[in-house]
Amino acid sequence: MEKGDLKLIKKYQKELTLIEGVAALLDWDQQTYMPKSGILFRAEQSAFLSEIAHDKIVSEELFNSLKRLKRKKIFGDDKLMLDRFYKRVERARKIPRSLVSEIARATSLGHDAWQRARDKNNFEVFRPYLERIVELKRKEAKLISLPGSLYNSLLDDFEEGMTAEKLKPIFEKLKIELIEIIRKIENSKEYGKRKNIFLGNKFSKEFQERMVRDVAKRMGLDEEKSRIDFSEHPFTTKIGINDVRITFNIRESPLFSFESAVHESGHALYELGLPEKHAYDVLGGTPSLGIHESQSRFWENMIGKSKDFWSFYFKKFKEEANLNNFEEFFREVNSVSKGMIRIESDEVHYCLHVILRFELELALMEGKIKVRDLPKLWNERMKEYFGKTPKTDVEGVLQDVHWSGGYFGYFPTYALGTIYASQIFASLKKKYPKIEEDIRKGNFRKIKLWLNENVHSFGSKMLAEEVIKKACGEGLNVEIYINYLNDKYSKIYGF
Amino acid sequence: MEKGDLKLIKKYQKELTLIEGVAALLDWDQQTYMPKSGILFRAEQSAFLSEIAHDKIVSEELFNSLKRLKRKKIFGDDKLMLDRFYKRVERARKIPRSLVSEIARATSLGHDAWQRARDKNNFEVFRPYLERIVELKRKEAKLISLPGSLYNSLLDDFEEGMTAEKLKPIFEKLKIELIEIIRKIENSKEYGKRKNIFLGNKFSKEFQERMVRDVAKRMGLDEEKSRIDFSEHPFTTKIGINDVRITFNIRESPLFSFESAVHESGHALYELGLPEKHAYDVLGGTPSLGIHESQSRFWENMIGKSKDFWSFYFKKFKEEANLNNFEEFFREVNSVSKGMIRIESDEVHYCLHVILRFELELALMEGKIKVRDLPKLWNERMKEYFGKTPKTDVEGVLQDVHWSGGYFGYFPTYALGTIYASQIFASLKKKYPKIEEDIRKGNFRKIKLWLNENVHSFGSKMLAEEVIKKACGEGLNVEIYINYLNDKYSKIYGF
Repeated sequence: MEKGDLKLIKKYQKELTLIEGVAALLDWDQQTYMPKSGILFRAEQSAFLSEIAHDKIVSEELFNSLKRLKRKKIFGDDKLMLDRFYKRVERARKIPRSLVSEIARATSLGHDAWQRARDKNNFEVFRPYLERIVELKRKEAKLISLPGSLYNSLLDDFEEGMTAEKLKPIFEKLKIELIEIIRKIENSKEYGKRKNIFLGNKFSKEFQERMVRDVAKRMGLDEEKSRIDFSEHPFTTKIGINDVRITFNIRESPLFSFESAVHESGHALYELGLPEKHAYDVLGGTPSLGIHESQSRFWENMIGKSKDFWSFYFKKFKEEANLNNFEEFFREVNSVSKGMIRIESDEVHYCLHVILRFELELALMEGKIKVRDLPKLWNERMKEYFGKTPKTDVEGVLQDVHWSGGYFGYFPTYALGTIYASQIFASLKKKYPKIEEDIRKGNFRKIKLWLNENVHSFGSKMLAEEVIKKACGEGLNVEIYINYLNDKYSKIYGF
Repeated sequence: MEKGDLKLIKKYQKELTLIEGVAALLDWDQQTYMPKSGILFRAEQSAFLSEIAHDKIVSEELFNSLKRLKRKKIFGDDKLMLDRFYKRVERARKIPRSLVSEIARATSLGHDAWQRARDKNNFEVFRPYLERIVELKRKEAKLISLPGSLYNSLLDDFEEGMTAEKLKPIFEKLKIELIEIIRKIENSKEYGKRKNIFLGNKFSKEFQERMVRDVAKRMGLDEEKSRIDFSEHPFTTKIGINDVRITFNIRESPLFSFESAVHESGHALYELGLPEKHAYDVLGGTPSLGIHESQSRFWENMIGKSKDFWSFYFKKFKEEANLNNFEEFFREVNSVSKGMIRIESDEVHYCLHVILRFELELALMEGKIKVRDLPKLWNERMKEYFGKTPKTDVEGVLQDVHWSGGYFGYFPTYALGTIYASQIFASLKKKYPKIEEDIRKGNFRKIKLWLNENVHSFGSKMLAEEVIKKACGEGLNVEIYINYLNDKYSKIYGF
């Protein structure tokens, strides 16, 4: 019996993995090559696949097998796999199919309304739709009903094991420290001397694409297992084992394509480094989005915005444009300014953006504030944390897509990933004190292998906190990130 | 009850249509952009989708609904839809899942063995695998058991309503006439004067791709509903409503990319012209592969190898290379020679290749010959029809992929499509006697619209024979094709 159950449970996981990959291909194609008019049929295809996946995960046959196995003594990886999959199945079974459909419909309409609201620069267009989404997501959270804040039931889906109660003091401390670092930067003699070296120079599309491919390859992205295409918004997706794809785009700033390629390649290396042995079961996945983001932000910021890294790439950029002063150039890569937009933010302001969103969505889910209060609260907090308020809703509360898709609990993973990244960087430097010498030569081999061994190879056999403990000797530690920022920016801005 | 049944039957058809489109995307991606190492996971994804589709089509719930509805009075399109879908379901239900899997495995191994046999230029490597495939396909045919030749049960899947008994006299006549036309060509004064204008000139890849896109656009392929990519073998695929894709390739002959683009665009225009009202049911498909092929071969041969067509495109090709003599150039486009390879064949030899394959696969299925006899029989018939025998197995019996995939009954549709194409051409000229004037200007609008109205718009509401009757005033008529060839080639070769 036991053997049969285990086999069946693995078969279900394999099928769910296959569906996930197919769904990822539909989405990748939609964002890269699909002819414009294909969109309606594509939406039907995607919805149909979600239905098949949902039917699979809530199947009685599967649940009965899982319950029987839970009563038996199982050890090792099978035990881990069973626990994690059971949790996922249990979660899915708590939400009735009708609510799944309602949320799908509400977020589909919500996404559309969000875009219209942005076009009209008017939150009111989006408000009724967001109210509906919030209502449904609170309903979902109540059905899942993890202990503590209602928010935890949603957060757990993105960052398993994390809670609002744990996050609050960490983010509170981070917020105070970030505001202090920003104060020091703004009082420094170098602040505001930005010369717009990049925007002042033309970097051809061909050059930008060449650099994108160059850096991905140097980071160790295997061309037989990955590809790089062009899309409106850069993203990484896993189509299947040995098939991971990233995209890039050319924007006004010539650094955009390059930095986002470094970021997405970080994600892609993680996907390709997950344990192949568990390719068809839940252990082959990631423990949390925070860990995923730690990989992209580690490469983007700790490596891709470091002086050693740019002492290598400056040579290439210099050849293309009229650049001569490396110090000025490097300062521009790391220039700090009070931008209102999260995705355009510098390293120092970035987590403040995230914390603001976390505070608002937490209060929303806990029923302490209303959707209609969002624009006012947003602007008040921006004034408080940034000393400036957005001029429009598009620059403010309408800037992110997440809420329109019902993704409450997603934002904190950006800040968590950033903190993890700094811890990983510290550990890596402890292991290889002279790693800068490699980086200055554009050689990232040791870094990639260290990440493969110390982060990627665990898959989701452990939760995020345990992965970080194993890789860095301790769990989440925001001090390390604060020290990293103080250390780096005091040198750049001289404070 | 009835209403519920009809709804359910339509739901099943919609789901099957969605799965087909997703499967088509997996295949398209595999042939265009998939990273090399993604192949193993892709095979699993494709197999899984086939299983889902098979489970759907043989579902008891569906069959019960269909049986109930068959007893009721249904009219109009619903009646047509019901009949066609019932037939498809009945056919699928006749084949047990175990046989479906066995055939899938045998053809998967068979395809691999076929490639190895080609690499070694040795039919013996392929023989045991082909024997197994033939055995399984005969088993399948016996289970389906249509009246007449055992071959009919397989042929019907590609060309519904067609039988070996109907085909034999038609192909017999065609064979005799083709051999006679070839004799006249070979005795003409122009024969053998080919100058290899194309191979002697360099046409850049950029130029070839520009011409591919140019001709597809002129033919009326809407860029918002289609795309053109690069792949090893050119093909057309429908991903969904308003999303049809073709591919091209660059080969030694610079005409290859252009002619195959015309061919594939013919297929693509057909797919885009099918009735959108029936996009989610069986009536929105094609009645037969012969009709599909009539569209590609009509454009490729009757239009794309005509003098009027080339009087337009010669100007563009002339600019790229050192060409001056249009007559010579045109004769080269239509040069006739005794090639051993079907897909490289000229218009006159093409159907002879097809008839040879038909005769052999018919005898195989009827148990009159054995797989081990194939190379000998192939070469004997080549000698008889072509007056020449292939030097190797790769040039002979190993040249086509079809049998390795179990596609017995497929070949005749190439010849049928060619005959239909000539009939369509004759009807079109009756309707628009001065259509050459448009063609000479590179204007194909009237042709596309006529095909849309007289062929595409019916979907599969009628069988192939009826579509041709409606479009051309009579059913399959091989005389028209023979007249077309005599007329065209007597002018070119002067006989």
